[in-house]
Amino acid sequence: MSEELHAADRAAHTGNDEFLLTPGPLTTSLTVKQAMLRDWGSRDRQFIALNARIRERLVAIVGGERSFVCVPVQGSGTFAVEATLGTLLPRDGRLLVLVNGAYGERMMKIAKYLGRPAMALSCAEDRTPDLDSLAALLAEDRAITHVAAVHCETTSGILNPIEKIADIVVDHGRSLIIDAMSSFGAIPLHVQRVPCDAIVASSNKCLEGVPGMAYAILRQSVLEACEGNAHSLSLDLYDQWRAMEGNGQWRFTPPTHVLAAFDQALHEFEEEGDVEARHARYSANCRVLVDGMRAMGFETLLPDELQAPIIVTFRMPADPNFDFGAFYNRLAARGYVIYPGKLTVAPTFRIGCIGQLVKEDLEAALAVVRKVLDEMGVTQCAPAADAAE
Amino acid sequence: MSEELHAADRAAHTGNDEFLLTPGPLTTSLTVKQAMLRDWGSRDRQFIALNARIRERLVAIVGGERSFVCVPVQGSGTFAVEATLGTLLPRDGRLLVLVNGAYGERMMKIAKYLGRPAMALSCAEDRTPDLDSLAALLAEDRAITHVAAVHCETTSGILNPIEKIADIVVDHGRSLIIDAMSSFGAIPLHVQRVPCDAIVASSNKCLEGVPGMAYAILRQSVLEACEGNAHSLSLDLYDQWRAMEGNGQWRFTPPTHVLAAFDQALHEFEEEGDVEARHARYSANCRVLVDGMRAMGFETLLPDELQAPIIVTFRMPADPNFDFGAFYNRLAARGYVIYPGKLTVAPTFRIGCIGQLVKEDLEAALAVVRKVLDEMGVTQCAPAADAAE
Repeated sequence: MSEELHAADRAAHTGNDEFLLTPGPLTTSLTVKQAMLRDWGSRDRQFIALNARIRERLVAIVGGERSFVCVPVQGSGTFAVEATLGTLLPRDGRLLVLVNGAYGERMMKIAKYLGRPAMALSCAEDRTPDLDSLAALLAEDRAITHVAAVHCETTSGILNPIEKIADIVVDHGRSLIIDAMSSFGAIPLHVQRVPCDAIVASSNKCLEGVPGMAYAILRQSVLEACEGNAHSLSLDLYDQWRAMEGNGQWRFTPPTHVLAAFDQALHEFEEEGDVEARHARYSANCRVLVDGMRAMGFETLLPDELQAPIIVTFRMPADPNFDFGAFYNRLAARGYVIYPGKLTVAPTFRIGCIGQLVKEDLEAALAVVRKVLDEMGVTQCAPAADAAE
Repeated sequence: MSEELHAADRAAHTGNDEFLLTPGPLTTSLTVKQAMLRDWGSRDRQFIALNARIRERLVAIVGGERSFVCVPVQGSGTFAVEATLGTLLPRDGRLLVLVNGAYGERMMKIAKYLGRPAMALSCAEDRTPDLDSLAALLAEDRAITHVAAVHCETTSGILNPIEKIADIVVDHGRSLIIDAMSSFGAIPLHVQRVPCDAIVASSNKCLEGVPGMAYAILRQSVLEACEGNAHSLSLDLYDQWRAMEGNGQWRFTPPTHVLAAFDQALHEFEEEGDVEARHARYSANCRVLVDGMRAMGFETLLPDELQAPIIVTFRMPADPNFDFGAFYNRLAARGYVIYPGKLTVAPTFRIGCIGQLVKEDLEAALAVVRKVLDEMGVTQCAPAADAAE
């Protein structure tokens, strides 16, 4: 199919004239967006049922039916991460955060706002946390009550070894909080295999809803003991949970349209075949993207075994004709929106594999990348030798 | 026009098969909702421009162009109220809240979460705050740094005398924070006539956008001194403002679709004729509603001079055939969603005048109320004598 025909065909499916190859907001289906074409009363019985359905489905995705509850919160993913840390950490709690990117750093920043003592176990953005150090730290510092880890760090696209991390945290009798923002629904995460007390994510990543709400899947027995912990009324997940269990309603006006879209997105998620199917589609997208970019000479930051099929970080080409701003704008003008890098270790940019994208979209994107490089006179896509170290 | 024809005509305009006669989420136009039919990248230049346009318009609505800035926040109105209190009140600040309803009470609750000393100047839900007491309190208690007041208390629908309150607060050299959630855009509020440091509102009330974002209009010179005050990263309006001034972007994923709808809603607000036209339309709605309900024997909680044209509280009829649950359900089944009461002083229910409604919609609603009362065998809509006191 020609570039133009492909674009027209896909525009009909998504309602967009462009593809968001980003970690979110991302490309959603037109049917998800069409679910926003009516107004819902937040106390309406149908809306209450919709809300209950969403919460149940989210718990089921991580296999938490018997012992976990889903507590939603208005806002972005960060709101839910802050709400979870604020609600779960008692005033005398102490947090250890595994940091290998901006989202781990952000949890440290949140702990500072909360006034809870926190320490980071940090490593480079292209490495996974040192598990021996984690075990040693937990053995040494008995004051640590909670460990927070990011499943897939969007900063680099790295997949952290969450199962091993969970085993160590559980062995040491501490509470694990997982930021699964960019992995939830696309990378298997099951509470039986990854014991934890909280998994945090949002409507707008791999479940392919629109942004505006986020949620935590919380172990009920843990949540029950959290009354009075929270630093914020709006972000008090204990209070939100109690109220919602009572009458099925949100305490404060919910983003009704966003929730209607999310309900439809979850329906489409199930139709596609749940986590397994979504993982397969994103993995195929990622494979096409990485292979195609490598064939043009680009280098990925990460080796394949650390790469999550969510977003890929590419090193900036050394070719003097390559200018990222121009590259970005030319791609955007042709309908492909990529993402700048966020790394401290090397100049990079990122291309996402998630959202309502199939591998043909990535193939089309690669063809456009090739054209844009030719227009710019870029022949050499390898990074500078020092950056490639 | 018959009931059925009217409903069909209006459904085409709003995309809904029902009218939300509530304080929000409310009925929005179909064109507002259609603005959500595409996905925006949050770093996209067009989206950044849309965001800047919204912020400028909101400041202009209250005449704050020279000295105020708009800082948006994800979530419901309460998120913005909490963010404003948290950001503006220094750690050694002391808050006085004027309370005559649930939203004043909520600010007291927020202050408790914030750990800031706060006191309430309370009065009954059908009375406005005692202004002499306010002046006396401010004169006596020099430790009070901030006063918070609700412009229109949705609990009862009462319009508080915000101009007089502002004059007293300014005379005593304190800082005024106005919760204008349910009045912004429909009841004139101009910072030259109502001197204050903060006005808080949301996308989802009289500006007729969809829910999911809220905002504060803040005096810039005050905001500049607020670094480090906030109790929450997500709700830190100082940090949000600095970041947004820097690159035009939200710190954390914005509800892009909600913002696109809000941009369209603001466009339609201007087309209609700004605050003046919206005030006129809602006032006409309110007049039709109150007159029609009174003609059936219902009594309003408030005398007309205290009634804001936003939402009207009616006393529950004493007729033994009247059952609110049945009344609500029968109205809802015919496409009119009303709202339960929230009062402590008397059994009541509420009917809203705001959203994408014209007086013909209220006339149609009244005809349906009449039919439903007849079906229920309710002949006497006056409240019990003691409740009418």
